[in-house]
Amino acid sequence: MYALYIGNKRYSSWSMRPWVLLKALDIPFDEKLYFFKPGQAQPEFKAFSPSAKVPCLHDSGNVVVWDSLAIAEYLYEAHPGVWPSDAAARAFARCAAAEMHSSFAAIRDECSMNVALRIELARPLSEGLRRDLARLGALFAEGVERFGGPFLAGEAFTAADAFFAPVASRCQTYGLRFDDNPAAQAYLDALLAHPAVQAWIQQGIRETEREPYHEEDCVRGRKVLEDLAK
Amino acid sequence: MYALYIGNKRYSSWSMRPWVLLKALDIPFDEKLYFFKPGQAQPEFKAFSPSAKVPCLHDSGNVVVWDSLAIAEYLYEAHPGVWPSDAAARAFARCAAAEMHSSFAAIRDECSMNVALRIELARPLSEGLRRDLARLGALFAEGVERFGGPFLAGEAFTAADAFFAPVASRCQTYGLRFDDNPAAQAYLDALLAHPAVQAWIQQGIRETEREPYHEEDCVRGRKVLEDLAK
Repeated sequence: MYALYIGNKRYSSWSMRPWVLLKALDIPFDEKLYFFKPGQAQPEFKAFSPSAKVPCLHDSGNVVVWDSLAIAEYLYEAHPGVWPSDAAARAFARCAAAEMHSSFAAIRDECSMNVALRIELARPLSEGLRRDLARLGALFAEGVERFGGPFLAGEAFTAADAFFAPVASRCQTYGLRFDDNPAAQAYLDALLAHPAVQAWIQQGIRETEREPYHEEDCVRGRKVLEDLAK
Repeated sequence: MYALYIGNKRYSSWSMRPWVLLKALDIPFDEKLYFFKPGQAQPEFKAFSPSAKVPCLHDSGNVVVWDSLAIAEYLYEAHPGVWPSDAAARAFARCAAAEMHSSFAAIRDECSMNVALRIELARPLSEGLRRDLARLGALFAEGVERFGGPFLAGEAFTAADAFFAPVASRCQTYGLRFDDNPAAQAYLDALLAHPAVQAWIQQGIRETEREPYHEEDCVRGRKVLEDLAK
């Protein structure tokens, strides 16, 4: 049996990825939700995760997989639906997920995930954010066009989609759209509408726990247009 | 046939990983070395890499794999030696490589790779650097102790070792040692001594091309103790 250790559904974009993947593939797991203590680092998480970070997957109590992308590959050994069955689509999906894993610093830094808020972002957007959005749009459009959609590497929802689920939530929170790139926007809409993505977001909206560092990091003096938790 | 697109051996820590992996596993490939143009971004790389970054692997001219970790997984499908054969060691190796892929920002930012230089670092080290080194030391010691060494996940050199090869070069350049953690230091020494790692470093030392942004980023007014290229 799998146990998945995660942080707050309101904030934890890394935790969202394997949770959404497991739900989308209908793989049973025990959810171990640990709310963040005040501050950016969570040293107590060391009790279940060697890097003191979430997500962390435990398999049958003895295998510990402490990184989101390693969790995807670990699951793939037993669950072939984690990646597309077509080899070219699989290579593309793995590149896309890995690019999300190491890059897109501007959207991660400037648009912290908060599934319940709708926030007004200053325009024009920063140069970094515009660059990240341009690259995301190109990547989304390429995937949908090459593999036929509606998901990033074809008809099935795979780990690549799970990796971009937090981007879909961020775009919703901060009002970011791909209006000049209909293929990318259609992908983002399909991703956001997926039941596993919606399940995470709705549970996150219902969370009552608050952590000041993460709250402040989203808002930064920006105008909150709507708080769905209220 | 594989073609591997890489940047300068003197600087490009991301390029080093799959190059070292291919060499260590004796997998033939065409090296496509593109020297960095002045500046941090390399828009011309878009001609062969969709993210405009290196490394990028082309397989038989039609599959393009543009991320280092995705390259490892792509190669693994045809070359089982990329990851350890033991399932627990493989899960550990994948976590370690993925943690390197997304984390250790302080050592990556403050200790830019430059295989030819020996640079004096101000002491005490920054808090971020001390935290990264503590985590690297714990990870190295855990791997060697659990799987018996000399490499991170056992007797064979795998993608996990390729992912930490740039750390071994950085530790050498900036005089960083794990003197209070003999298992970690022994691992780092074994990694640095591996013929594939040495081949990259020696070729990097012989490179005559210089790119001002990368040169300045290593030195930052610090004292250069030795320049092996001279």
